[in-house]
Amino acid sequence: MMAAPRLFVDDDLGEGNEIRLDKQRSHYLRSVMRLNAGASVRLFNGRQGEWRSQIADAGKSVTLKVGENRRAQQQATELWLVFAPIKKDRMDFLIEKATELGVTDLLPVITRRTIVSRVNTDRLKAQVIEASEQCERLDIPTVHEAVKLSDLKSAWPDDRVAFVLDEAGSGGSAAVAMSAKAGHPAACISGPEGGYEKSELDLLRTLPNFVPVSLGPRILRAETAALTSLAIWQSVCGDGEAPPVPQALRD
Amino acid sequence: MMAAPRLFVDDDLGEGNEIRLDKQRSHYLRSVMRLNAGASVRLFNGRQGEWRSQIADAGKSVTLKVGENRRAQQQATELWLVFAPIKKDRMDFLIEKATELGVTDLLPVITRRTIVSRVNTDRLKAQVIEASEQCERLDIPTVHEAVKLSDLKSAWPDDRVAFVLDEAGSGGSAAVAMSAKAGHPAACISGPEGGYEKSELDLLRTLPNFVPVSLGPRILRAETAALTSLAIWQSVCGDGEAPPVPQALRD
Repeated sequence: MMAAPRLFVDDDLGEGNEIRLDKQRSHYLRSVMRLNAGASVRLFNGRQGEWRSQIADAGKSVTLKVGENRRAQQQATELWLVFAPIKKDRMDFLIEKATELGVTDLLPVITRRTIVSRVNTDRLKAQVIEASEQCERLDIPTVHEAVKLSDLKSAWPDDRVAFVLDEAGSGGSAAVAMSAKAGHPAACISGPEGGYEKSELDLLRTLPNFVPVSLGPRILRAETAALTSLAIWQSVCGDGEAPPVPQALRD
Repeated sequence: MMAAPRLFVDDDLGEGNEIRLDKQRSHYLRSVMRLNAGASVRLFNGRQGEWRSQIADAGKSVTLKVGENRRAQQQATELWLVFAPIKKDRMDFLIEKATELGVTDLLPVITRRTIVSRVNTDRLKAQVIEASEQCERLDIPTVHEAVKLSDLKSAWPDDRVAFVLDEAGSGGSAAVAMSAKAGHPAACISGPEGGYEKSELDLLRTLPNFVPVSLGPRILRAETAALTSLAIWQSVCGDGEAPPVPQALRD
């Protein structure tokens, strides 16, 4: 059985509510998915869990009638990714995968070797919504405005562990280092292509809970390193042992 | 300091040997990297470690003179990825990342829901070479010809653990399941978009060392699931604690 389409909406969700979709989502359901009145659509808003709904009107503006609540909202385990922006295709991929891997906060940082001068946060926000719809999560990662690496320290929470992916090799195995900090709020900090400059690494070392981690002998591309660290963290400290959302809740 | 370019060649490597590059690689060094006679290039062939060389002739066919051996060949820890082919862009990404994550064998399998009818193994071979050059590994993953999933069992080595990424949720945490099998030859087995059909999962369950693993509550795209499993395996069972290749060996 095909899963019912799943959409993120801003509206409040409750049984009997009517939700009118914008042009783009209306087009998606009507013309791309070819759905008609009566078809099932799942809705979530990041606050109230997931709700079944039915298409009430498949006209130019699709209207949905909200049915029963199928999944209660859950508080996602916080996991930040602090990353240096990279080239478009690779960044698209990074954002999609980081969302699938359960990141709750995306913090772009501008480093000396960052070659991307401007971060289009609206584009990132659209990407995290699409990836969240796809991967069955109930929340949407928060996309923060880009900051300079030199400004990161002043904003750093005292209790948050900073797992810095360090190609200079001062760290131990990521799985070992991360499991030693299980239960602590965490951030993975990945660099630009070409890595951090020495002065930047020195700055990162002054973060209150700095933990350098190694990802093995190969030199990973920026986006590979970021995703690898998130994958390992989820598996040893996060929700890697939770079973996948059952098929029965996806119709 | 910029790392010297790194090329995979088929030739035998030994001090004083002369290596004549093909048209494509000659063009790359001369016109893309803009290198002249005397410039340093690193060479590896998957058998004899890594060697420094110098451009002797930067003409139409670039000739290299092999200098000193800088890194001895190491036996990579075997890790197979058995994967259902996916759409082009996502497969390109999967192959590049799997190579960075140290896979030694890539085995495409055709499943019922595989939408890609033909696997261009020559293309995959070119991609694993390029990714290997980039990520500093000394070996090149072996790309196998695609087989039907139903033929996989007859070729399966008795002692190889089959970590099957199972979205039906029968498995435990990948990190826990994998670390329990540390030291064993391993394969990660990922499915197509849409997952395995039930009969296919039943078949996989009959592999001698079948271990289902979960990658958490979110439904990962095919390539994300594959890469996540490789990242976790390397960190808990593989070379995740080895330090990165030092900068001093990359000039």
